[in-house]
Amino acid sequence: MRERNSDKRRPGKPTRRDDRKPFDDGQIGGKRFGGRRLGKPKAPWRSGPRGDGPVVLYGWHTVKAALENPQRRFHRLLATENAARRVTEDGVTFPIAPTLVRPDDIAAIAGAQAVHQGLYAEADPLASPELEDIATGGIVLALDQVTDPHNVGAILRSAAAFAVRAVVTTERHSPEATGVLAKAASGALEYVPIATVVNLARALEELRELNMFLAGLDSTGEADLAATSLSVPLALVIGAEGKGLRRLTRVRCDVIARLALPGRITSLNVSNATAVALYVASSKLAASA
Amino acid sequence: MRERNSDKRRPGKPTRRDDRKPFDDGQIGGKRFGGRRLGKPKAPWRSGPRGDGPVVLYGWHTVKAALENPQRRFHRLLATENAARRVTEDGVTFPIAPTLVRPDDIAAIAGAQAVHQGLYAEADPLASPELEDIATGGIVLALDQVTDPHNVGAILRSAAAFAVRAVVTTERHSPEATGVLAKAASGALEYVPIATVVNLARALEELRELNMFLAGLDSTGEADLAATSLSVPLALVIGAEGKGLRRLTRVRCDVIARLALPGRITSLNVSNATAVALYVASSKLAASA
Repeated sequence: MRERNSDKRRPGKPTRRDDRKPFDDGQIGGKRFGGRRLGKPKAPWRSGPRGDGPVVLYGWHTVKAALENPQRRFHRLLATENAARRVTEDGVTFPIAPTLVRPDDIAAIAGAQAVHQGLYAEADPLASPELEDIATGGIVLALDQVTDPHNVGAILRSAAAFAVRAVVTTERHSPEATGVLAKAASGALEYVPIATVVNLARALEELRELNMFLAGLDSTGEADLAATSLSVPLALVIGAEGKGLRRLTRVRCDVIARLALPGRITSLNVSNATAVALYVASSKLAASA
Repeated sequence: MRERNSDKRRPGKPTRRDDRKPFDDGQIGGKRFGGRRLGKPKAPWRSGPRGDGPVVLYGWHTVKAALENPQRRFHRLLATENAARRVTEDGVTFPIAPTLVRPDDIAAIAGAQAVHQGLYAEADPLASPELEDIATGGIVLALDQVTDPHNVGAILRSAAAFAVRAVVTTERHSPEATGVLAKAASGALEYVPIATVVNLARALEELRELNMFLAGLDSTGEADLAATSLSVPLALVIGAEGKGLRRLTRVRCDVIARLALPGRITSLNVSNATAVALYVASSKLAASA
């Protein structure tokens, strides 16, 4: 995995914050972001770092996990006095000094709906891993146009819970959406590498060439996932709600499977479906190991 | 299950709409509800009908399922011309004539965030079933202070998918929250009876007396749910995120179980956890049947 903002700067590269290009008009709650970004050369069909702007992080688990992640580069850190004390009491050191604020100050930036629990940060997105580095074993999730930040966040949390190697996605989120996503992920953003690709079908092709078994999940799938032979390294390919897997995604899968659901509704919320699929797949793989 | 607004009215009871007590100031998006309610005698510790106000329903699956439910009593029905045509083409008849509107008119009432897909309704909540009627077999879900309407909606959808008999909850939602909940439930509100109780601990006691096996789900539980003996009728008791099961809930359970999660995060989003628990429980019960 390449690091984007490593401490080991290449000589001649501008490193001081003031030399960075200002972030382009990212706004949230009517306020301008303090975040900035560095340019980075891109692979022809791969977007380098995840997203284009800074990520917004708020909420206890979310920010605490980020503070504990040595890869995170913070631009801005706000904390209530209580939250700052709790962080320090938990033995976590602040990589940059937090600005002490009142809860309302965070709500004014993150929005009144944001359950910030006294912690708010803006940071660089983490580096996007190379596909060859994530196809080495275990399970990878590939998301086909799953966009809702609550769902993507919950999926990342489940991915961390089921020890998923990485999540592959084409989606880039606005800074506001990253706040919602990161909160729903409950710290998982720090644990699960996200490979952001421009073209999912081509990424799946590359994963197949890297000997991954590709299982697409779709409520119209003919095979019951629990009765399907699976092998590692495994990519579980998840379609968007309503739309399901796109044709170009579908044709690249080794199998299209569904969850066996006995009731009157035959499809689950996408994050619920993903959690059940991860349970089924990891149980099957553990049993056959 | 008792019906609240049955067509068979008792003699002497006012039945004409104009005789009803106006709904007390229910507002959404700054507009006043057209919905009204009927008074109803209540059991001492049970809130009779779910919630106090009308439920708001929007979204294709949500409203279509409601239109197909003969138990639903509508107060107001808005549809775009396209949506009304699609409903009719699907062979569904409107129980009351829809007011034809532009999409923006629905957005003005339901909020700009609401994915209404051209259909909006206000209706009476469905009748709350008696506990003795839901403890007759299969699986029941009991929610201990799970409040977020997105999560409750997704849980209802999973409940419908796993053929859950009923959901027991203490939560009452504002009309605005019922809209979010019903949309996330994707029609499941029409398929899964919701028993709204005032005191969950006492409801669980009643379910035990009705010979239900009570399995609490908590990330701190000592037993792995997949390795726990379960029997029908089964109540799966789900705790709120962060707080988990309350002490008075916990002591009423026959077992407190967790999901075996191999990763760095050891708890899932509550709707994801519920979906996995339903999968585990229904697979185990099907295997032992």
